[in-house]
Amino acid sequence: MRGKFISLEGGEGSGKTTAIHCIRQWLDARNIPYIMTREPGGTPLAEEIRQLILSPRDETVNNTTELLLVFAARAQHLAEKIQPALEKGSWVISDRFLDSSYVYQGKARGGDTEILNQLADWVVGDSKPDATLVLDVPVELGQERVVQRQHQDRLDKESLAFHQKVRDGFLERAQAEPGRVKVIDASLSLDLVQQQIEHQLSQLYSTWSGNV
Amino acid sequence: MRGKFISLEGGEGSGKTTAIHCIRQWLDARNIPYIMTREPGGTPLAEEIRQLILSPRDETVNNTTELLLVFAARAQHLAEKIQPALEKGSWVISDRFLDSSYVYQGKARGGDTEILNQLADWVVGDSKPDATLVLDVPVELGQERVVQRQHQDRLDKESLAFHQKVRDGFLERAQAEPGRVKVIDASLSLDLVQQQIEHQLSQLYSTWSGNV
Ligand SMILES: Nc1ncnc2c1ncn2[C@@H]1O[C@H](COP(=O)(O)OP(=O)(O)O)[C@@H](O)[C@H]1O
Ligand SMILES: Nc1ncnc2c1ncn2[C@@H]1O[C@H](COP(=O)(O)OP(=O)(O)O)[C@@H](O)[C@H]1O
Ligand SMILES: [Mg+2]
Ligand SMILES: [Mg+2]
Repeated sequence: MRGKFISLEGGEGSGKTTAIHCIRQWLDARNIPYIMTREPGGTPLAEEIRQLILSPRDETVNNTTELLLVFAARAQHLAEKIQPALEKGSWVISDRFLDSSYVYQGKARGGDTEILNQLADWVVGDSKPDATLVLDVPVELGQERVVQRQHQDRLDKESLAFHQKVRDGFLERAQAEPGRVKVIDASLSLDLVQQQIEHQLSQLYSTWSGNV
Repeated sequence: MRGKFISLEGGEGSGKTTAIHCIRQWLDARNIPYIMTREPGGTPLAEEIRQLILSPRDETVNNTTELLLVFAARAQHLAEKIQPALEKGSWVISDRFLDSSYVYQGKARGGDTEILNQLADWVVGDSKPDATLVLDVPVELGQERVVQRQHQDRLDKESLAFHQKVRDGFLERAQAEPGRVKVIDASLSLDLVQQQIEHQLSQLYSTWSGNV
């Protein structure tokens, strides 16, 4: 049986990487085979593209360039890693995927939604995630959590207004596709975040297994 | 006055880099300001993308990934180097440009022409070259010339059939846009190639100067 594809979304510091640990435990407890991956990246070439996108640099990065690089990495990630894993019956858990493009390259950078839709259609098509969990936190809280990290990349350094657009953008994605995109209140304690994630996973799992 | 944008096209070993020396002399003799550039590449970020595209690698490179990387580099090249130079009145001479995408990612790799047209419209739009010179040689002759070079990249190593499609592809580009794309018989001696290039440049120059 084909595996399920789940993506985690949210601003920096919202708790995506932390949520992945929780999902891992849930899958292990059910003996479900899975791979963990991330975007931009996921294959050697796609990780090299990630470096190009995220490295701080003197040169102004054209918005169209950033958008095309993200979708170039995604095309590689889908063809060489995600699709083969799903076909083998493995679940795929990705730290960011398509929704991040709508939010970062679209909403936050002002990219043209029509072009985003065309690229999404063409590169992703029917291979959207089966479910997407958006980790939602107020911008200030996300920033506080990020500040404690060592390494800061090109996007971490954006203004508060940028990060506010990012948060709004993810909430809009959930409104646009409520069947696929579920919002998790990630401002709560780790315990309560974990409970919400497990609740979502159990609901999805019973739907997918046909025993609602 | 806005500068003119000229691109050189043709398979590997057809003589593009050699032709650029000839164009340089022609421009110097007329005191025309110019910059020389190339694709994929032309800016630091675009050159890094070039490395990703051309490096031999174990991982299969998805055709869509290659296409998007090429247009990502082109968007950066246009915005950060070509357009600013033309606006300052400088001519821009580029070793490869848009036609190479139609030929390599389209004709040779079987990429969808409709998608190529969309990307071309969106990334290049009205910024097509004012003139394009296609250096045309039989595939075997181009191969002989390339073999003498030290360094071989991922595309040099393709089959003869691939390189035949490349040659055909460039001739089709000239048929599709005969006003912009001019074919140079580059199988002749350097002297005779140089004469053809100078002839084309003089014709274009008198047209652009309005004294035909
Ligand atoms: N619910 C939470 N409560 C408190 N701290 C959290 C919570 N979730 C994550 N953190 C901490 O916030 C920081 C950012 O979390 P992380 O999972 O790395 O976010 P992301 O991957 O979305 O950038 C980490 O130091 C993490 O331990
Ligand atoms: N018309 C010509 N006759 C003979 N050799 C040529 C001619 N044009 C180029 N060459 C040689 O062929 C090789 C490839 O030419 P080059 O200009 O580097 O091609 P390209 O840049 O199109 O790959 C070089 O060694 C060059 O000196
Ligand atoms: Mg993380
Ligand atoms: Mg050359």
